[in-house]
Formats: sequence, C-alpha cells, structure tokens
Amino acid sequence: MTGVRVGIDIGGTKVEAVALDASGAVVARDRRPTDPGPDGVVRSALASVRALAAEPASIGIGIPGMVEGGVVRGAVNLGIAELPLADVIAAETGAAVGVENDVRAAAVGASHVWETPTIALLNLGTGVAAGVVVAGRLLSGRGGAAGEIGHFSIDQAGPACACGQRGCIEAYAGGRALALRAGMPAAAAFAAAASGDARARGAVRDAVSAAASAVEILALSIDPPVVAVAGGMARAGGGLRDELAGELDRRAASSPFLRELRIRDRLRYVGDAPLPAVGAALIPEQEPHG
Amino acid sequence: MTGVRVGIDIGGTKVEAVALDASGAVVARDRRPTDPGPDGVVRSALASVRALAAEPASIGIGIPGMVEGGVVRGAVNLGIAELPLADVIAAETGAAVGVENDVRAAAVGASHVWETPTIALLNLGTGVAAGVVVAGRLLSGRGGAAGEIGHFSIDQAGPACACGQRGCIEAYAGGRALALRAGMPAAAAFAAAASGDARARGAVRDAVSAAASAVEILALSIDPPVVAVAGGMARAGGGLRDELAGELDRRAASSPFLRELRIRDRLRYVGDAPLPAVGAALIPEQEPHG
Repeated sequence: MTGVRVGIDIGGTKVEAVALDASGAVVARDRRPTDPGPDGVVRSALASVRALAAEPASIGIGIPGMVEGGVVRGAVNLGIAELPLADVIAAETGAAVGVENDVRAAAVGASHVWETPTIALLNLGTGVAAGVVVAGRLLSGRGGAAGEIGHFSIDQAGPACACGQRGCIEAYAGGRALALRAGMPAAAAFAAAASGDARARGAVRDAVSAAASAVEILALSIDPPVVAVAGGMARAGGGLRDELAGELDRRAASSPFLRELRIRDRLRYVGDAPLPAVGAALIPEQEPHG
Repeated sequence: MTGVRVGIDIGGTKVEAVALDASGAVVARDRRPTDPGPDGVVRSALASVRALAAEPASIGIGIPGMVEGGVVRGAVNLGIAELPLADVIAAETGAAVGVENDVRAAAVGASHVWETPTIALLNLGTGVAAGVVVAGRLLSGRGGAAGEIGHFSIDQAGPACACGQRGCIEAYAGGRALALRAGMPAAAAFAAAASGDARARGAVRDAVSAAASAVEILALSIDPPVVAVAGGMARAGGGLRDELAGELDRRAASSPFLRELRIRDRLRYVGDAPLPAVGAALIPEQEPHG
C-alpha cells in the first residue's frame, strides 16, 4: 500500500504496527518480536514499515523512555541510552517521521478511537505514568513532564523510588515495586492476595490504593470524561479492575463531592486493542500543547 | 467610556473591577465594598459597571462558588445559595455577560497579563483550588472539577475535610483549616510559628507541606511553565513564600527527577495586581476546553 500512515508501538518484547487510511481506520496490522538494542529497534521498526506499506505517507513511533525532538533517551528495557530514532528512520525511508513516548502515543490513540477529544490514559506498567490529551492535542508540558504523576509522593516516609523520592505512586503501583513488595511476580500477586497470602495482600492493597490516587489526581486536575487504564498491571492483575473500582467507591462513600464526580464510571480499560500503534500513526500530525 | 470590556471580581469583602480596551490594556479601575446576599452582589456589580462604562461591550464576572451556565451556586461567604447572575446582569445592562468561578477567572487573567498561554493558578484562600489554562483556553472539565486539587487526600487518616474526605490538601493548607489547627487566625500563625509556638509551628509546617504537594500535582499533571500562587494565605502569611520554596527545595534535594523540573522556579505570586478582574473581563470570549 502507498499513502497510508504507519504507526508503530515498540514494546519490550513485541512491536505492534498498524496502517491507517485517510479516514483514520486501521487497514492493516503487523506484529513481530522486538530485537533489542538501538540497531535491533531500528531493524524491527523498518521491518514493520516494509510489511505494511511500500511508500507510507508518514511513520509514527511510540517507544518507552523520554522522547524529545525525535531523540529517545533512557529506554532501559530496550537497551537504548540515546537514539535519534526519527532521523534514522526518515533517512532509511524518506517518509515524514514522528516519535513520541509510548504512553502519550497510547493516549492519542484512545482519544482517536474512542472519539474523546479530552482524555487521560493511566499506564500501570513497570512504571506508572499518564498521557493527557486536551481538545485533541497532546499535553506535553514545559518540562516534558505532563502526566508524570507516578512520581507524586503520597507518603514522604514511604518506600524508596528509583527517582530518588520516597512513597511515589510508582513505588507502590508500578509492576516492579509490587513484585518486590509482594515477593513474587506482579501477575501472581493478585491471585496470592485473594487466596490469603498476607504479604501479597498488603502489597496489592497498597498498589490499588496508589492507583486510585493516580486516578483521582487526573480527575481533580484535568477532569477528563474518560480515564483510560492500560499497561501490564491492568492486564495481568485480573483482580485489578474490581479492586480499583472498589477502592474508588470506598473513597467516594464518605464524600458527596467525590460521589458527584463519578470518577469510577469514567474508567475504561484499553485491553489488547492496538491503541498505542494507532496513536503512534497520528503523532506526525500532532502539535502538542506547550 | 463605551466599547470597553468590563471585568468584575467579587470577593467576600470587596469588589474589584477593571475596564479593558481593545488591546487588552486596563484603562480604568473601580474598587468598592461588597454588599452581601444575592441582591447586594447584583447591586455591587451594577455599581461597578456604571462607574466604568456607559455601554460596555461585554461584562465578565468572577465570583466564588460553583458556576455553570451563568448560574452561581454555593457562594457561602457571599450568602448566595443559587443566583442566575449572568441573566440578571444581562437584563439590567443589555450587555453580553459571562460568569466564571473567581479562581478560574484569575488564571485567565494571569495567562493574559503574563503572556503565558498555559498556566496553573493555585489559590490558597479559605479553600484551596487551582485554575488551569491550556493554550489560552480555560480547562473546565467534564464535571467542572478541573483544578479541584484541594480535595485530593494526601492522608486517608488525616483531619476531616468539609467535603467528607479526610486529609485533603485543603484540610491542611486552607486558611480555615490552618486557623483551626493553629488555634489562631491564619495570618497570625506564620509569625507565631516563627517565634516558637509549637502548635502554630506544626500547623504551619503541615500547611506548607500540603501546599507543596498541590504545586507538585500541578507540575506533574499539567507541567505548566508558570504556577501562579494567589489567595489570602499567600498574601497574609508573610512567611509562606520562603517556607514553600524551602519545602520544594527539600523535596527536590533527594530526587534528580524533581530537581530537573525546577518546580520552585516556576512559582510566581499574584500579589495585589487586579488579575482576577482582568481575567473576568476576558471570560465572555473564553471557550473553555470541555
């Protein structure tokens, strides 16, 4: 195909790609394992492009880490310290290329697919972060930190976070933190907690409470009609949906103010839909809010 | 004058009004005491209009409480349960009238005067709330709750808040809460804390910590270039500026991530400039983000 917009979501283990036609509909998909390292990531992305389009109109890429001006930094899980990904892919393909952080790209995708111009997408993965879209445009922020609520401390005396603070939301609700605190993989902790393992139960309770705080922060700062929930924790923790809804209900029970906001009813789970890749395809034409 | 845009900020004790010319510059000001109650508020607003313009092009009003569709609700300090203020003023003047919550109007004013299209304004008054402007447009939110971070709980076991929750930011950093906890007027608590009063010291420390959390929430969700600080607490507490800067520095000291965001350097104090009235004058032409 020619003229399509290709979107590529590069994850730690797999690369998910889509081609969008002019109307924004998905007309082709490609899925392949991720080759790690800078060269591997470039090779994987180019393979996805070739599988989907001979001459794509544009290529958008979502990738973990900090992204600024098409340069990716600190994508630890991919073995990338610094990579000028947009320039490399543009040189190889001749297409217009846009690169964005994967959580932000997913927020753009959710906004597009669910037709919700303002939305926050909370990613509960190894780390915790949100992507925010206001009136159809990504909120980037002065320091590139819009949506970095995983590093808001809910307990200044809490467990240490990789960022240097204590008690960050991520230090409870991130997959790595939950695994450490529960003494088992995050995916197993929900089941273990349900069957009475006290340590897992405590870790899960704290993770759910921190995730609820993240949702509340988004509701009380941005107040979007939809808070999308994505990431490995949301998928792997079968119990997360019920526990998170229960915790938000419990908090609202004491507060007419919170009840009226119906925060729980705004949650929507991303599941396995290729929203991050769809969002990535729209990145080249995005003009983020400053 | 004719053709000017009149902006009116209705506070608990005084009404501050400005007239803006076509360029957005303040060409006249009026200041008078507030008559309380629905009739008093209407009378005060009309007196301000008449003092400034024979035939204003538009009238904008900022007022405490919830404002929706020109109707004010729950402006307790003004003795207003419910008042269709926009309709009443429009009927009396024949002008186009817009009414908005006063904190939000102040955020629009700060964005305009300081030429910062994206900004958050944190109001530390009797209550605690923020107004958020993104790319020149007010963020209103689905539930009208954008910026209501005063009701984020930083300690689920903390002191009771009027909203029904416990440990809300407002339950520490609001002027009413600080006065209760310190056992003296909020304005006196900073001085008493500085001269060694243990109870005042504890209350002030908690208030400053909660205010720092509010600033961090704004920085990590919206990431605006400027966080304006306004309200009686910011003016009355002579010590607040230094204490808040010190608390943000202390938190950043442990975290390279926070340090890089330079949150403390984004603070800017509103002081006595008529930003709320200027912002109110711009409300009739605002189209808030949904």
